[in-house]
Amino acid sequence: MRLARQLEKLGTETAFAVSGAAAAWAAKGHKVYPFHLGDINIPTPANIVEAAYKAIRDGYTGYCPAAGIPELRAVIADDVGRKRGVTYSAENVSVQPGGKPVIGKFIAAVMDPGDEVLYPNPGYPIYESQIEYQGGVAVPYGYVEKDGGFELDIDAIRRSITPRTKALIYNNYQNPTGAQSTRQEMEELAELALKHDLWVLSDDAYYEMRYSGEPLSIVNLPGMQERTVILYTCSKRFAMTGWRLGAAIGPKEVIDVINKLNTNAESCTTHFIQRAMVEAIPGDTSGPDQILQILRERRDAAVAGLNAIDGISIQAPESTFYLFPNVTKILERKGMSDVNQLMDEALVRTNVSFCTRKHFGRPLPGEKHAYIRLAYSGIDVDDIREGLQRLKEYFESSE
Amino acid sequence: MRLARQLEKLGTETAFAVSGAAAAWAAKGHKVYPFHLGDINIPTPANIVEAAYKAIRDGYTGYCPAAGIPELRAVIADDVGRKRGVTYSAENVSVQPGGKPVIGKFIAAVMDPGDEVLYPNPGYPIYESQIEYQGGVAVPYGYVEKDGGFELDIDAIRRSITPRTKALIYNNYQNPTGAQSTRQEMEELAELALKHDLWVLSDDAYYEMRYSGEPLSIVNLPGMQERTVILYTCSKRFAMTGWRLGAAIGPKEVIDVINKLNTNAESCTTHFIQRAMVEAIPGDTSGPDQILQILRERRDAAVAGLNAIDGISIQAPESTFYLFPNVTKILERKGMSDVNQLMDEALVRTNVSFCTRKHFGRPLPGEKHAYIRLAYSGIDVDDIREGLQRLKEYFESSE
Ligand SMILES: Cc1ncc(COP(=O)(O)O)c(C=O)c1O
Ligand SMILES: Cc1ncc(COP(=O)(O)O)c(C=O)c1O
Repeated sequence: MRLARQLEKLGTETAFAVSGAAAAWAAKGHKVYPFHLGDINIPTPANIVEAAYKAIRDGYTGYCPAAGIPELRAVIADDVGRKRGVTYSAENVSVQPGGKPVIGKFIAAVMDPGDEVLYPNPGYPIYESQIEYQGGVAVPYGYVEKDGGFELDIDAIRRSITPRTKALIYNNYQNPTGAQSTRQEMEELAELALKHDLWVLSDDAYYEMRYSGEPLSIVNLPGMQERTVILYTCSKRFAMTGWRLGAAIGPKEVIDVINKLNTNAESCTTHFIQRAMVEAIPGDTSGPDQILQILRERRDAAVAGLNAIDGISIQAPESTFYLFPNVTKILERKGMSDVNQLMDEALVRTNVSFCTRKHFGRPLPGEKHAYIRLAYSGIDVDDIREGLQRLKEYFESSE
Repeated sequence: MRLARQLEKLGTETAFAVSGAAAAWAAKGHKVYPFHLGDINIPTPANIVEAAYKAIRDGYTGYCPAAGIPELRAVIADDVGRKRGVTYSAENVSVQPGGKPVIGKFIAAVMDPGDEVLYPNPGYPIYESQIEYQGGVAVPYGYVEKDGGFELDIDAIRRSITPRTKALIYNNYQNPTGAQSTRQEMEELAELALKHDLWVLSDDAYYEMRYSGEPLSIVNLPGMQERTVILYTCSKRFAMTGWRLGAAIGPKEVIDVINKLNTNAESCTTHFIQRAMVEAIPGDTSGPDQILQILRERRDAAVAGLNAIDGISIQAPESTFYLFPNVTKILERKGMSDVNQLMDEALVRTNVSFCTRKHFGRPLPGEKHAYIRLAYSGIDVDDIREGLQRLKEYFESSE
């Protein structure tokens, strides 16, 4: 009796080890400053909580369609389309238990074994894992740092496309860099997708987590809606990470297949949660607005705290709740070569916990700079200030 | 741009088409008698509803571990072990969004492409679909009708085992036949699994849906706990089908892999629902007891109603909420050869909706008898009586 061989190709989120180390350190009686979490320590808006309770009592406790309840599919189609300047209908929406399931199901829908799929690296680690687990070739593309912010490495993408390239994964408003495309950058990307006839997964997990400006979506560019599947999630916007509600939005032919995968995987997504969101998604925006306001204050505190450190210089990203400072000079000052050593020592010396570039994919050949990732979604402003002051003292010393 | 070729191997639950036909008929103004549903029209016990609401307000709304929260893993380990006379601990439990996800994840964990997996047919259709979709060979085994009940076709299983057989799927307390093994039958099955070194998936979806007698579990037999993964679900026992909470319970090495698959698929299962079940699973049994009591009354009414039909004779199964009467004589009387024609006509003539053998796997070579499946979980006693009276009139006429 052995286990399946294919499991050797299955990756994971190594960032969970950081949570483990932070928890172990806290258990020893230390106050940890949690910058490692991609989770949100803000309550879900009360109207959603009450709507869910009502839906349970109203009896929305039985199985529902694998694709999601028709009312929610219609509401998501409308909301997602309206915010991107395109039209979707209910049949373009497949409800999911979170945004994450869209990754594996998109790949299952469009990729054959041996096909190549381009994905961002640094990036959300499940892209690489799912491509390889399902027998594809995961081809990474990176970002270029410019003035303390990040741009897509379009040239790298162009060079990496081959006749076997089947799909491109694109995470605008990006985890972990906070990168967001200009219109020109997005048009160049769309041009490549059209020219090489690629499917696109647009991971829009942070599409609504923006602090200024008008959003831009690749589905709005000519010829792109027909080839793009959007990963949509309630996790971030409504502080509902643990509720597990998301959706895939795309061409009907792909959505039909994803619905069939739902029937084979989890039957359906929690019925009463779907019912609760039928009103919450198009309704009262005061909950999401307040969440964004809290995050904006944290962002400003965190950016200021980091820029106060000698050797670090970042721009305030206009979206996501992540910061990805270049810490190459800090490593040099300390004579360290491994950014994870910096992470381990920082926890013990300062109680500040964060992830590094290494938790977001295998480093690319030729990478010269070192980065850490701080999330400010799970830590309050006072602790941000306190933690980053401690980090400053440690980062600025040569020991 | 085409879709993935592997999708050609993906099956589905064709029974959904029956729901569609019933809904369409109801939409025309007919009162449908819904015997086709595997769902339960009984409210979730109030203590669970209140515990979930409290858990949301207490802030259990963030991500939680991919394996499930430790408290729930411990409670399930204890409950499942105690009811089967074996010992499990939290590390043997992987929480899932329903029982169904265990099927695909078990197969992913133990099967390599080309391996053979034995599965029951008639049986839950997702076994066959997942085995084939994941590149295995789905080898069906059937049941033998005896005195209006069903026995495993152990000889067929024995004959079907080859050196490539990797696993056996076993659904004691079976959907759709209601079959349950005697101790001797289960021992013969265990002997085969040991002799041929097979992994076993024990689909225990109905383990607690029993109306009499002591349950028997294959993990209780010598050498079996080490090779068996149990599919556990809250769906039926607590009338929680739409909540989506289940678990895989098995050897740590398999559970570790399934946890990693969780990280890749859905991240985690709804946090506050897990929290609510920490008290409900070991706690107050009055809710589940009442659900069983209601189902028992329905079973008795349904069995009586079917046995009143000339040409049908069934035993009352001691478990599940399904009846699988042999309708060969009814087809003969009507001069029909296709059991689905009987189903279609019954809906239009009597408003009674049910599934047939054909919704539970491709018929095996040499099958001579025709069966229909009636579920009594979604229909009240009065409607059971009324519906079966109408069915009697139609089944007993030769037109
Ligand atoms: C880039 C990205 N995509 C997708 C997700 C999935 O989130 P969820 O499954 O909670 O919707 C995340 C969560 O952190 C993310 O960062
Ligand atoms: C035999 C069997 N296994 C598993 C399941 C899965 O149920 P759930 O995913 O709701 O736990 C069912 C549901 O009808 C079933 O009949």
